[in-house]
Amino acid sequence: MAVPAEHPADAPVSDAALRALVGYNMKRAMGVIQADLARTLDPFGLRMLTFSALSLIVENPGLRPSRLAAALSVERANVVVYVDQLEQAGWVSRAPSTRDRRAHALQATLAGRRVYARARAAVADHDRRMMNGLRAEQVAALRTALQRIEGAG
Amino acid sequence: MAVPAEHPADAPVSDAALRALVGYNMKRAMGVIQADLARTLDPFGLRMLTFSALSLIVENPGLRPSRLAAALSVERANVVVYVDQLEQAGWVSRAPSTRDRRAHALQATLAGRRVYARARAAVADHDRRMMNGLRAEQVAALRTALQRIEGAG
Repeated sequence: MAVPAEHPADAPVSDAALRALVGYNMKRAMGVIQADLARTLDPFGLRMLTFSALSLIVENPGLRPSRLAAALSVERANVVVYVDQLEQAGWVSRAPSTRDRRAHALQATLAGRRVYARARAAVADHDRRMMNGLRAEQVAALRTALQRIEGAG
Repeated sequence: MAVPAEHPADAPVSDAALRALVGYNMKRAMGVIQADLARTLDPFGLRMLTFSALSLIVENPGLRPSRLAAALSVERANVVVYVDQLEQAGWVSRAPSTRDRRAHALQATLAGRRVYARARAAVADHDRRMMNGLRAEQVAALRTALQRIEGAG
């Protein structure tokens, strides 16, 4: 049988082979979450990775960029970009490390801690909104499954 | 109390605030899956998005790039890049659309269908490997949760 030359414009596009993969379903769910997170963070002048970096700097005062990069599992060069953006916004300051003069210790400024507190509340609302279709025990099972998958890597 | 100037080098970096978010746990699990998927696809000369595009073209012969972009939820400009790569590898061909001369209908070549069949089997193994720490009912619950989250978007 010859392959049809053109997929019918009114036929649905089948992604059954991809849907069989749990990873593909996770990628699609993640896309929905990231789009909503971007809308949530935009009014604060933050994006997913600058928010995550600010969170770790607030929680771990004096953190060095190399450890921030490791904690976020991102390249050191990318972390420098996020830290630059946070510094330009006046939310993070760098001080020379007392242990290593070539390194810097990162601190959130008062303005940084304030914007983080507001953004964190908005992100917590976003996270609950994303889980609206799930019962509490389903959310708990989801957390367990995600942590097992991460731990298997 | 003064903020310490420097985070202790031997202290763990706390990400408790981020871990409270289901979305952050999903991002971390997704990172592990994507790294393993990249290693799985590399021997075939494929990456996550070229594999996904090839899958949809094999499953939907004659697909137009605009519908491929919509099915993958990626920008049309990005899909053109993936299709170019698949075409250069000799796995996909473009024919002028019979309905619209400015558009193209995408077809997998014989070589494209062959590499896809092998890559698909390797990706199915990768997906099962990622779920190794979960029982079958936990994987089923994970699928349901991910599809609910995607549907809520």
